[in-house]
Amino acid sequence: MGEEVKLLDFWPSMFGMRVKIALAEKGVAYEYVEQDLRNKSPLLLQMNPIHKQIPVLIHNGKPICESSIIVEYIDEFWKDKAPLLPSDPYERAQARFWVDFIDKKIYESAKKIYTKKGEEQEGGKKEVIEILKQLEQVLGEKAYFGGECFGYLDIGLIGFSSWFYAYETIGNFSIEAECPKLISWVKRCLEKESVSNSLPDPKKVCESLLQFKKRFD
Amino acid sequence: MGEEVKLLDFWPSMFGMRVKIALAEKGVAYEYVEQDLRNKSPLLLQMNPIHKQIPVLIHNGKPICESSIIVEYIDEFWKDKAPLLPSDPYERAQARFWVDFIDKKIYESAKKIYTKKGEEQEGGKKEVIEILKQLEQVLGEKAYFGGECFGYLDIGLIGFSSWFYAYETIGNFSIEAECPKLISWVKRCLEKESVSNSLPDPKKVCESLLQFKKRFD
Repeated sequence: MGEEVKLLDFWPSMFGMRVKIALAEKGVAYEYVEQDLRNKSPLLLQMNPIHKQIPVLIHNGKPICESSIIVEYIDEFWKDKAPLLPSDPYERAQARFWVDFIDKKIYESAKKIYTKKGEEQEGGKKEVIEILKQLEQVLGEKAYFGGECFGYLDIGLIGFSSWFYAYETIGNFSIEAECPKLISWVKRCLEKESVSNSLPDPKKVCESLLQFKKRFD
Repeated sequence: MGEEVKLLDFWPSMFGMRVKIALAEKGVAYEYVEQDLRNKSPLLLQMNPIHKQIPVLIHNGKPICESSIIVEYIDEFWKDKAPLLPSDPYERAQARFWVDFIDKKIYESAKKIYTKKGEEQEGGKKEVIEILKQLEQVLGEKAYFGGECFGYLDIGLIGFSSWFYAYETIGNFSIEAECPKLISWVKRCLEKESVSNSLPDPKKVCESLLQFKKRFD
């Protein structure tokens, strides 16, 4: 019996990108259903009544919400191909810790770059650089955060890279100058089809963010 | 070879309680190291340099941080006894979703009860009741959130119950009147030694919170 897999998403969401990459890594076919977040669909409200947010994975009619939880679900359900989480309990805990760190930190700090001005905007830039430097340290000399293999923590972070161009353009700074090894990692990840097919054009993200930014100017 | 297990904690923390309960369920002996959060120890700063928060589990010298991640680690490392997460991937995702919901919602809403006054305090009470009613719905007619067996989501929530008396005393309202089934679940959980030995006296929590509250009066 075939699996019915649907993804409710909004194209620039780095959280949605996680799910797309995980499904691509597992070779799972799915129906992509773009959502209008200013006019939420009855399906989104029914499938995620608590947070009313994308991404939502609907698997055989049942919803799974929250991107990091969805990626773990995908890893556990389609467990025979391309393991995403490490097998060692301590390594798993570390991967979860850093994805949780990303969830708690990057989005809110980066938001200051495109919604604030002056000192607050500068603060956002500093915070983003500090966070990325911490992650660069975690990466160390490894090819991927998962070591030799692309995995859960790589998936947790890589979507943000499609916003870097927008952060840099709006904030007038260079992430590569501050975190060269992290940018090498981004390029390495983009060589994987599961990633390059799941991330949008950074210029399109930037345009979209500049439109959004007008509301705050 | 014996396992060296240490817990850095602060006694009223509902997040620390999760770890104590999980270790008790697994029958793991450990050294409890109380922390002074106003004067953080070099050990805490070394073991959790990112968040500088308790609880931290130190297992054979290696730290694991963030309570929900620690509980999953405990479940995965000591996997032969008392499984805490469900085995079915969908059920696991649901348990993770609700623990994440608890983490995102209850503490911040409840804080308004003992740090705010007037309308804001009333708002906090309303939010807490709404959150608990949502969780009561998830519980439904089951004995535990895990069904017949006490598990991950039960562990995620039960520590908060040791603060209910303080919320009710300071906020002058009754949680039991609003959520009778949830309170029956609390009583059921307290019949388990792993829980009753891990939760502090609610009156002691209340006293401690009243002391803390003086700073905001």
